[in-house]
Amino acid sequence: MSPAALSNVTLPADLSLDSGQALSGVSIAYEAYGALNAAKDNAILVCHALTGDQFVASEHPVTGKSGWWERMVGPGKPVDTDRFFVICANVIGSCMGSTGPASEASDGRPYAMRFPVITIRDMVRGLVGLLDVLGIERLHTAVGGSMGGMQVLSIAANFPERANRVLAIATTARHSAQNIAFHEVGRQAIMADPAWHNGDYYAAGAQPDAGLAVARMAAHITYLSEEGLTRKFGRRLQDRPDGSAGAKSFGFDADFQVESYLRYQGSGFTRRFDANSYLYITRAMDYFDLAEEHGGTLAEAFAGSKARFCIVSFDTDWLYPTSESRHIVHALNAAGAPVSFVELSAPYGHDSFLLDVPALDRVVKGFVG
Amino acid sequence: MSPAALSNVTLPADLSLDSGQALSGVSIAYEAYGALNAAKDNAILVCHALTGDQFVASEHPVTGKSGWWERMVGPGKPVDTDRFFVICANVIGSCMGSTGPASEASDGRPYAMRFPVITIRDMVRGLVGLLDVLGIERLHTAVGGSMGGMQVLSIAANFPERANRVLAIATTARHSAQNIAFHEVGRQAIMADPAWHNGDYYAAGAQPDAGLAVARMAAHITYLSEEGLTRKFGRRLQDRPDGSAGAKSFGFDADFQVESYLRYQGSGFTRRFDANSYLYITRAMDYFDLAEEHGGTLAEAFAGSKARFCIVSFDTDWLYPTSESRHIVHALNAAGAPVSFVELSAPYGHDSFLLDVPALDRVVKGFVG
Repeated sequence: MSPAALSNVTLPADLSLDSGQALSGVSIAYEAYGALNAAKDNAILVCHALTGDQFVASEHPVTGKSGWWERMVGPGKPVDTDRFFVICANVIGSCMGSTGPASEASDGRPYAMRFPVITIRDMVRGLVGLLDVLGIERLHTAVGGSMGGMQVLSIAANFPERANRVLAIATTARHSAQNIAFHEVGRQAIMADPAWHNGDYYAAGAQPDAGLAVARMAAHITYLSEEGLTRKFGRRLQDRPDGSAGAKSFGFDADFQVESYLRYQGSGFTRRFDANSYLYITRAMDYFDLAEEHGGTLAEAFAGSKARFCIVSFDTDWLYPTSESRHIVHALNAAGAPVSFVELSAPYGHDSFLLDVPALDRVVKGFVG
Repeated sequence: MSPAALSNVTLPADLSLDSGQALSGVSIAYEAYGALNAAKDNAILVCHALTGDQFVASEHPVTGKSGWWERMVGPGKPVDTDRFFVICANVIGSCMGSTGPASEASDGRPYAMRFPVITIRDMVRGLVGLLDVLGIERLHTAVGGSMGGMQVLSIAANFPERANRVLAIATTARHSAQNIAFHEVGRQAIMADPAWHNGDYYAAGAQPDAGLAVARMAAHITYLSEEGLTRKFGRRLQDRPDGSAGAKSFGFDADFQVESYLRYQGSGFTRRFDANSYLYITRAMDYFDLAEEHGGTLAEAFAGSKARFCIVSFDTDWLYPTSESRHIVHALNAAGAPVSFVELSAPYGHDSFLLDVPALDRVVKGFVG
């Protein structure tokens, strides 16, 4: 589908950040679908994941691929754009139009590593700034998977009056040591690339593509289940470009299909994503600990919320396993919040929230109502 | 303890490899402990893991650290050097004295990427060559964990007359798609480092340390359990070098203890390991599929074996989970081989085989007899 609006707003006020710093002239790039009603009570905010963007249901301008949640958002779909005004905005720190490390600072040069370190709550401050500009007091629903789920939980905790319903999918209320470790590998891969050049590569011919590709490859493994990888690739060998059937090369070419797939994922990613954005967004995720923000008790984070919640996990997600969702649900119960919780069965691991899982469609449709 | 012998033998015959190539003048560096008896029937071969070496129970000459299985091998220990002649040899392809990519080829220059791609079976051919030189017809026991386990299974399958007892710990009979994927990330990290220079870095000032460190960091995460990481580090912040207590830096320093730990693991590794060896050995492990070598049926691999087997897995090992050990045990049962199998409970993930797990000591002691 085509977007109803392709927009980029500049927030009128400075954005105060958790670091104590502030950002001026913040741009928020967003896509919107459907129409906002007169009461302005039919808005749904979709929050994107680490490497996602605002193109939730429209063609990506760089890759030409269809929207990342096209199966979920559109006319007659679970998030029905015939009934709802659906907004998806690029988070600050990212690279698809919202202010991030590649944006120009006041001196006209890219921020690069002068960009302040941000948090998930800072991203949410940017999103709430957009809602203010759009005149949306209260969302019908805030929905997101993975890092998008962190954002909707953060909205519930920090802006409890801004969303009636909160749907968090395949996510966590805090990054675990293992989560941090995988992100640290990615960051080190980027920073080890001489083309990274302490982040000052925007005017250079070379970009830290090699490091960013390795970071993406490492992360990509965590998005898939072992079972899914085995089903999809097993130990099958790659056919050769010359058309010959798969055989071990006794060399370092991509012999196995899974190697070829990972290399493709890595190199494709570098064409659409900024390495510094990857550093900043992974840092924000690693810093995320909703309980810590609220006196150390997760239930306290939700104490002021009047929203209804739905928490969804996937049985093969080992990045943010069901135990993390259960932890959120316990806190919501302790806070007296109405919450439904479901663990869905799907073979795709963490990426299940993006893929063909009809049960998820039904949960989303049912909860959005 | 001090080694009884620190030796390096040159195999008298060329080593024919699975690739169809051959290696001449192969050196095998090994350590030996205890005394070989007159009947030469008290020899135990310990096989090392990917980044391991022959210094199983003696000080590492580079790091000065004690042997990697000091808790298991020594006088009065489960592998008792008062009774057994214990041998541990560096595998070919590695970098602690056995022939590998850093060794001189016939033209006097390092092989680098001219070194042939080897397999686990090729490593075992090298080990059997050493046993021939030492006059050991038949091992009392072959024991190994992780890649060492692959080697002892390969001995049982390919040289069934050479070992009476085979003890394989925390291992697999084939590398899964996920195993291959993690290794591929490591290889790409090394090969993305400009200092790698297509493997020709031995005479250069710069070594591909940055890439090798990233490879090690990614792999290291797979050696630990999520539970172990959480127990050891959780989300605890790192104290600062200036002595100040842990606080978020809102920067890209190692804020979390787990980040600092991983960086330390990565940089320490580069001081003792060769990047090209890492490429070759991970390739050998990815190629490992014992069934494929034997007509596609794992039971066939063990059809000619007369050995007794013991297979050990750990409940928190997600690199080579218990299901992989069970797969081996089923095949051994189908082949009519005597086998005992135990899943041990330990919080450390794959690395449990190297760590303080008293139950493993008892299993090893009992099986070695």
